[in-house]
Amino acid sequence: MISIIMGSDSDLPVMRQAADVLKEFDIPFEITIVSAHRTPERMFNFAKSAHEKGTKVIIAGAGGAAHLPGMVAAISPLPVIGVPIKSSNSIDGWDSMLSILQMPNGVPVATVALNAAKNAGLLAVQILGAHDADIRNKMIAYKEDMAEGVAVKYRKLDEMGYEDYKK
Amino acid sequence: MISIIMGSDSDLPVMRQAADVLKEFDIPFEITIVSAHRTPERMFNFAKSAHEKGTKVIIAGAGGAAHLPGMVAAISPLPVIGVPIKSSNSIDGWDSMLSILQMPNGVPVATVALNAAKNAGLLAVQILGAHDADIRNKMIAYKEDMAEGVAVKYRKLDEMGYEDYKK
Amino acid sequence: MISIIMGSDSDLPVMRQAADVLKEFDIPFEITIVSAHRTPERMFNFAKSAHEKGTKVIIAGAGGAAHLPGMVAAISPLPVIGVPIKSSNSIDGWDSMLSILQMPNGVPVATVALNAAKNAGLLAVQILGAHDADIRNKMIAYKEDMAEGVAVKYRKLDEMGYEDYKK
Amino acid sequence: MISIIMGSDSDLPVMRQAADVLKEFDIPFEITIVSAHRTPERMFNFAKSAHEKGTKVIIAGAGGAAHLPGMVAAISPLPVIGVPIKSSNSIDGWDSMLSILQMPNGVPVATVALNAAKNAGLLAVQILGAHDADIRNKMIAYKEDMAEGVAVKYRKLDEMGYEDYKK
Amino acid sequence: MISIIMGSDSDLPVMRQAADVLKEFDIPFEITIVSAHRTPERMFNFAKSAHEKGTKVIIAGAGGAAHLPGMVAAISPLPVIGVPIKSSNSIDGWDSMLSILQMPNGVPVATVALNAAKNAGLLAVQILGAHDADIRNKMIAYKEDMAEGVAVKYRKLDEMGYEDYKK
Amino acid sequence: MISIIMGSDSDLPVMRQAADVLKEFDIPFEITIVSAHRTPERMFNFAKSAHEKGTKVIIAGAGGAAHLPGMVAAISPLPVIGVPIKSSNSIDGWDSMLSILQMPNGVPVATVALNAAKNAGLLAVQILGAHDADIRNKMIAYKEDMAEGVAVKYRKLDEMGYEDYKK
Amino acid sequence: MISIIMGSDSDLPVMRQAADVLKEFDIPFEITIVSAHRTPERMFNFAKSAHEKGTKVIIAGAGGAAHLPGMVAAISPLPVIGVPIKSSNSIDGWDSMLSILQMPNGVPVATVALNAAKNAGLLAVQILGAHDADIRNKMIAYKEDMAEGVAVKYRKLDEMGYEDYKK
Amino acid sequence: MISIIMGSDSDLPVMRQAADVLKEFDIPFEITIVSAHRTPERMFNFAKSAHEKGTKVIIAGAGGAAHLPGMVAAISPLPVIGVPIKSSNSIDGWDSMLSILQMPNGVPVATVALNAAKNAGLLAVQILGAHDADIRNKMIAYKEDMAEGVAVKYRKLDEMGYEDYKK
Repeated sequence: MISIIMGSDSDLPVMRQAADVLKEFDIPFEITIVSAHRTPERMFNFAKSAHEKGTKVIIAGAGGAAHLPGMVAAISPLPVIGVPIKSSNSIDGWDSMLSILQMPNGVPVATVALNAAKNAGLLAVQILGAHDADIRNKMIAYKEDMAEGVAVKYRKLDEMGYEDYKK
Repeated sequence: MISIIMGSDSDLPVMRQAADVLKEFDIPFEITIVSAHRTPERMFNFAKSAHEKGTKVIIAGAGGAAHLPGMVAAISPLPVIGVPIKSSNSIDGWDSMLSILQMPNGVPVATVALNAAKNAGLLAVQILGAHDADIRNKMIAYKEDMAEGVAVKYRKLDEMGYEDYKK
Repeated sequence: MISIIMGSDSDLPVMRQAADVLKEFDIPFEITIVSAHRTPERMFNFAKSAHEKGTKVIIAGAGGAAHLPGMVAAISPLPVIGVPIKSSNSIDGWDSMLSILQMPNGVPVATVALNAAKNAGLLAVQILGAHDADIRNKMIAYKEDMAEGVAVKYRKLDEMGYEDYKK
Repeated sequence: MISIIMGSDSDLPVMRQAADVLKEFDIPFEITIVSAHRTPERMFNFAKSAHEKGTKVIIAGAGGAAHLPGMVAAISPLPVIGVPIKSSNSIDGWDSMLSILQMPNGVPVATVALNAAKNAGLLAVQILGAHDADIRNKMIAYKEDMAEGVAVKYRKLDEMGYEDYKK
Repeated sequence: MISIIMGSDSDLPVMRQAADVLKEFDIPFEITIVSAHRTPERMFNFAKSAHEKGTKVIIAGAGGAAHLPGMVAAISPLPVIGVPIKSSNSIDGWDSMLSILQMPNGVPVATVALNAAKNAGLLAVQILGAHDADIRNKMIAYKEDMAEGVAVKYRKLDEMGYEDYKK
Repeated sequence: MISIIMGSDSDLPVMRQAADVLKEFDIPFEITIVSAHRTPERMFNFAKSAHEKGTKVIIAGAGGAAHLPGMVAAISPLPVIGVPIKSSNSIDGWDSMLSILQMPNGVPVATVALNAAKNAGLLAVQILGAHDADIRNKMIAYKEDMAEGVAVKYRKLDEMGYEDYKK
Repeated sequence: MISIIMGSDSDLPVMRQAADVLKEFDIPFEITIVSAHRTPERMFNFAKSAHEKGTKVIIAGAGGAAHLPGMVAAISPLPVIGVPIKSSNSIDGWDSMLSILQMPNGVPVATVALNAAKNAGLLAVQILGAHDADIRNKMIAYKEDMAEGVAVKYRKLDEMGYEDYKK
Repeated sequence: MISIIMGSDSDLPVMRQAADVLKEFDIPFEITIVSAHRTPERMFNFAKSAHEKGTKVIIAGAGGAAHLPGMVAAISPLPVIGVPIKSSNSIDGWDSMLSILQMPNGVPVATVALNAAKNAGLLAVQILGAHDADIRNKMIAYKEDMAEGVAVKYRKLDEMGYEDYKK
C-alpha cells in the first residue's frame, strides 16, 4: 500500500494527482491529512507505525517551511517521497523546495518537482516495480504511451502546419 | 531559564554565542543537542515538557532543511527563537533561513539572522525583560555601551585619519 | 499592552491579522501607522518611549527596503517582532524579508514569515505567556483547537473520499 | 543490485559516499562513469538495459546543467535517484539542483540534497527495504545508531560544559 | 535549413515566433515536436541525423528541467540554439534557464533569453549570414528598420507630449 | 563638502576608496562612523544637520540589513549615495543590496554596486560637476584616462601575444 | 534641465512618473525614447552631447538586459540615474536591476528601486538642490508634506478603528 | 576569422580558453581588449566594422553589469557569442549572466555558461562548420575524442576500484 499524506486540505488539488496515478496503475493507497505543525502527535504516530500496517512507500506533500516529509522520514524506515507545494504563503515555492530537499546526511527525502504530485505517484509505482515485474512492465507501457501521445501531436502539427495548429 | 538546543555539535561554535550573551546578563540557561531528524523522540519529549520544568524561552539552531525550531514550536507553548545556521551542507544559508522563517499560520518561530546566535541570546533577554524592569534596564545599558563602543571608534578614526586607521 | 505599528495604511489588510489574534486572546493592544521613512521623528519618539507607557512587545510590519522593525529595535529595549510584507513595490518579498531579518549583532528583530502578521500576534501572546500561566494555558488550548480543526478535515476527507472532497 | 553512475570522475569524491553506504548495508552495487553529454550512446544503452541485467535502483550524480539523472529516468523504467553536485563550473549548485529536480510530469527523478550521495545510498536501501524486512530492520537499527551517536555527544557536552567541548 | 524543435506542443505559442522570423527572412525551416523525456529515441535519431539531411542550425525550446537543447547538442555537431521557456511547471523560469545555459565544457548551447524564440530565429539568420552576404545585408536592413521603428515612436512622443501619448 | 559615513569600522577598507577618489579630484570631504542601529541618535542628528553645515552629498555604506543610507535619506534633503557592503554577516551581499536599493516612493537612495565605494565617490564628483564646469571637465579627463589605460593594455596584449601576456 | 530617456515606449507608464515629479517641482525637462540596442548611434550621440546642451542630470529607464543607463554613463560626464523596469520579458525584475546596478569601477549609475521612476525624479531634484537652496527648501517642504500625509492617516485609523478603516 | 574581445585584461585567464580551442581547430582569430564602459568609441568602431574586415563570429566576454556582448550585438550584423565572467566584483556571477542573456527581442546574444570561454570557442567552430564540411567533421571527431576520454576513465575506475581510483 502507498500512503499519501498532506499538511492541509488546501494541498488536496495538487496531491490528488498522486492518487489518480496510483488508481490508474491499480495500486492500493490511502490518502489523509497529517500536519507536522498542527498535529505533531498524529504525525509521530503515523510515521512510527506506517511500515507495520503494510505501507511500502509514503508520499508527503507540504508547502512553505515544509517539515512533514522530512519529519516522517526521520521516524519511519520507509522511503518517503516529498512533494514541495507552491502554497499561497510560500515565497514562489523556494521555501517548500529547499525545506524538503536539503535534508541532512542520514535522513533522505526523495524530492520531486514543485507541485509534481503526479510524478510522486509514478515514482512510488517505480519503487514497487523494482521488485515486481508486472508493475515494471506497466511502467514500460506507460512510457510507450507517453511517446505515442507525443507522436499524435507531431503528426498533427505536421499536417496542420504550425500557424493553424490547435491543441 | 532559557534552553539552548542545536541539531548537531557542529553547530556549537555558532550557538555558544547565545550562551555567552546569557552569561553576560546573568540569565540561567541550559545548552544541549537535540536533533529533529536523528533523535525525533528526544525532540518530542524536550518540546512537550520544556515549559513544565521552568524554561521560559527556547533558542533552537539548525542548518540545511532546518526543522528543529519549527517542530519544537509546533509542540511547545513557549516562544521559540530560531537561528538559521550556514552549515557546510547548506546552499549558502538560503535553505536554513527559509525552512525556519516561513512557518505556516498558527506556529510562529522568532527567526534571527543567519548564524546570529548572539542576537538570539539578546532577544531572549528582551523577552524576559518585557516583565522584569531590572533586565530591561540592563538592556538599556547594553545599548548605551554599544553606542559608546562606536564613539570610541569614530573618535579614533578622527584622530588617526582614515589612511592610518587600524582596528 | 502590545503595540502594532506599520509603515503605511496599505499594510493594514495584513497587519490587522495581528490585532485579530490579540483580540481573540483578550490581550490589550494599540494599532497605528509609523513610517520610518516618511515620519522618522515620530518613529524615533515612538520607539524611545514605548516601554515607558506600558508596551511589552512591539509588532512592526513593513515592505520593500523595510527599515521600521530594525530601527525601532535599535532604539527600544523591548522585543520587536518584524513582519515582512510583500507590498506592490517589493521584489517578490525578498527585499522585505532580508531587510528585516538580517540585522547585525546587537540588535535582534524576531522575524516571522512573509505577510505572517497572524503569527506575529501569536508570538506576542507566547512572549506574554512566558510569565503568565493563564496565557500559556490559552496557548496550549489554541494548539489543541488547531489539532481538532485538522481532525475535522481528515475525518471528512475519509468519509467523502478524495475525489468528492470539498472544503 | 544498485547501479551508481556519475557524469565525470571529478564527481567520484562525492559519489563514492553512496557506494560506502551500500557496502555498509551489504547491498551489491556497480559504480561507473556515464556522461549524458560526452557519451550519449553509452548513457542510452545503459539506461535501456539496466533493468534487464538485474539493477533495481539507479543512483545518478551530475553537476551544472545536469541532464544525466533525468535522461536515464526518461529511458529506464527503474526508480532513479538524482544527486545534484556542486561542481566547480556550477553557479553555487542552483543549476545542478534545478536541472535534476524540476522534471516534467511523467518522468520523476528522486532528488536528494546537494552533494548528498550518502543519502542517495540510504534511499536506495530504503527502496529495497520496502520489500525486504531484513533490510528494513537494518534501516531501523541504523536510525537507532544515529540517535545513539547524538546521545554520546549531548552527554559529553553536558559533562565537559559548552566552553570546553571538543568534537 | 533550420530545424525548430520543442519539447511539447504547449511550447508552440512561444516557439512559433522563431518560425515567423525565418519566414520573414525567406529561410527554409522545419518545425516539430521532439521530447527528450517522453521520446528519447526520437530525440536521439533526430540529433544524430540532422546535419546529414541538410540542417545547418537547430533551434530547441524547452521548459523546467530542460534537457532537450543540451542533449541534442551532445549528439549533433551542429550549432544548437536553446530557448528556455517559462512553462507552467517552471519555477519562474530559473530552472529552464539554468538547465539550458550551464552546459559543461565540450558541449555548448547558444542560449537566448527566457521565451525569446524570436531572438533564436534572428540568431539562426546571423549564423547563416556569417557565410552569406545577402543574408547579412538583410540583417543590416533589419537593424535599420528597428531603428526607424524607434524613430517613429520618439517623434510621436515629441508631438503628442508624454501625457497624451498612446501606443 | 562630501560626507562619507559608514556603519562600522569594518566597512572602512571598502569605504576609504570613496575618500581616495575625492582626494584625487581635490574635493573636500569628512569621513566618520555613524551606525543606524548602534547610534540611532547620532545618525538622526547627523542627517538632520548635514545640509546646514555645508555638506552637498552624503555617501553612506552599510552591510546586512543595511538601514543607514535609507534612514539618512529619510531625514536629510540632500542626495544620499548608498554603498551596499558584502560584510561577513551578509548573505552573499543580497541583503545589503536590497535593503539599500528598494526604498519606497518618496525617499530615494542613489545605490551603486556591491562594495563600489569608488563609484560612490565618482558619482559624488559628477553631482558636484552638474553645476561646476571645472569639475565636469576633470570628469571628462578622467574618462579619457580610463580609455588610455585600456589602450595601454590592448597594445601590450597585441605585442606580447595572449599566451605570454602578464598584467 | 533634466533629460528623461527610456528604451521603449512600453516603459512610458513607469517613466512618466519621473516627469510628473519634475513638473511638480517646476524643473524643466525633456522626455524621449533612446534605445541602446535598437538605436545605438542615437544613444551615442545623445550621451556625447547632453551636457553641452544644458542637461544637468540624466534619468534613464530600461528593462531586461538593461544597458541604456550604463552605456550613457560610460559616455557622458553627467550623473546618470538608472531606473530598472520590470518589463514583460524580465525575469521578475532581477535582470533589469542587476544589469543597471552592478556597474564596474569607474562608471557609476545612481540606481533606484525597481520601477521607481518617481524616486528617480526626486533624486534629480535633490541633485539640483545640492547647489540651489530654493530647491532644497522645496525638498524639505516635500518631506514635511509626506509626514503630514501619514499623520492624516494615523489620525483617521485612530478615529475609525482598524476594523472599519477604509483608505 | 573569429574575433575574441573582452572588457578587461583581468578576463584573459578565462577568455584565452576560447583562443586555445580555435588554435586547436586551426581557425584564425584575433584577441583584444574592448571595454564598453571605458572605451565606448572603440567598442562602437569595432562592432561597426568587424564584418567588413572578415570577422565571421564575435566572442565577447565580460563580468558584472556586462554590456559588451549586447552592445556589440546591437551594432554588428554578425553572430555574437557572450561569455558571462564571474569577476571579483560580480554577485556570484548572476549579474554577468543575466545582463548578457536577457537581451530584448531584436538583438540576440548567443550566451554560454558562466566562465565557459572554451564552449564559446567550440560554438564558434560549430557556426563555421554549418557551412564547411571539413570543420564539421573535425567537430564530429572532437566529440568522439571526448567519448574516448570518458572511456579511458571508466575503464580505469573499473580496474582500480572506486576506493583506490586516482585521477
